[in-house]
Amino acid sequence: MTKARILITSGPTRQYLDPVRYLTNASSGRMGASLAEAALAQGHDVVVVSGPVSVRYPDGAEVINVITTDDMLRVAGELFPKCDGAIGAAAPCDYKPHQVSDEKLSKTGRPIQLDLIETPDVIAQLGQSKRSDQWVVGFALETDDRNFRATVKLQKKCCDLMVSNGPEAIDAMDNHVELLDIQGKIIETIAGDKPHVATRLIHHIHDRLIQRKATSL
Amino acid sequence: MTKARILITSGPTRQYLDPVRYLTNASSGRMGASLAEAALAQGHDVVVVSGPVSVRYPDGAEVINVITTDDMLRVAGELFPKCDGAIGAAAPCDYKPHQVSDEKLSKTGRPIQLDLIETPDVIAQLGQSKRSDQWVVGFALETDDRNFRATVKLQKKCCDLMVSNGPEAIDAMDNHVELLDIQGKIIETIAGDKPHVATRLIHHIHDRLIQRKATSL
Repeated sequence: MTKARILITSGPTRQYLDPVRYLTNASSGRMGASLAEAALAQGHDVVVVSGPVSVRYPDGAEVINVITTDDMLRVAGELFPKCDGAIGAAAPCDYKPHQVSDEKLSKTGRPIQLDLIETPDVIAQLGQSKRSDQWVVGFALETDDRNFRATVKLQKKCCDLMVSNGPEAIDAMDNHVELLDIQGKIIETIAGDKPHVATRLIHHIHDRLIQRKATSL
Repeated sequence: MTKARILITSGPTRQYLDPVRYLTNASSGRMGASLAEAALAQGHDVVVVSGPVSVRYPDGAEVINVITTDDMLRVAGELFPKCDGAIGAAAPCDYKPHQVSDEKLSKTGRPIQLDLIETPDVIAQLGQSKRSDQWVVGFALETDDRNFRATVKLQKKCCDLMVSNGPEAIDAMDNHVELLDIQGKIIETIAGDKPHVATRLIHHIHDRLIQRKATSL
């Protein structure tokens, strides 16, 4: 079996407005932890870049904790050149306040307007910077036109495979995903608890990416 | 000893922009859980209204889970008439998007403007609705002019005591608080782990509020 060093991004990130309030999502890191577990079980090395979560990553994985999307990109960008591939299981907060206040904003009784700008796209940047011997697997979480939007994201982010799922995956024990190839074709529909889904995904990643890249060298 | 039924609000709340993204804060519920533990240990009955947390509340407490600030207000408002007093250890999200999108907002590459309006103030509403035999203890979390702002909040929210702390309290094991009376005078400065701080706070609440309200009837 070909052994790979796999970078997994996991969990949410936070984008603070002031020292107390932030924008985020309910990603638990459970899919990332399950992928780490499955990859280790299949003999690979794993490094996880994780936002704030309460899930426990397997002891065999190297874990680096980050808070913001920019932190996640910076750390993942530093680690990626020494990895064979990356899986973007994180749900990085994709908007951030244009301005961050040093002190807690006091309530005034009036509405406020928050100017939000997009954060960098971690997986797209890894995808666009990958060497020909590296691979990137993305996750797309959409509420509508799931697979169409996932395929658009796959191409834009230069991913090799894309996992398409819905918002019910967030903070859940189970998941129901479709694994899409580079043409947007469904390779497999996988449903069950996250450890099961992760095992199937790592299996496909091994066969289609790790093995193939290794034999094409 | 006079036994009281105490309502404790705890943890953060979330205000969703769309099915995935929300505004919140890092409140862990640990202060609320410690207060519940201390109140039970001192012989009181406890009902906790909690936002999403991973902390475990003591088995002896009745716990009701909520997501948004409006939910927290509704549930606390229903429970409060049957309680002797309330402690507002929660950090409810105090702004919410004016409009909530049913589908996940797609990124366009351009900045977006988010209109935020204030959520209702849970503890102020309990304070303003309390009967003369009831009491309310608030928490004020400020980065600047802490005790001055805490005293203003105490009066505005019709609290009987106010606990003033800083943002370093959030998601921490320890806390450093000042307990202020209705004139804004510091009753005690308490530092240490949250169970210790909670025990001291419940002690003061017992002596100054539970006991006094009971003897004045």
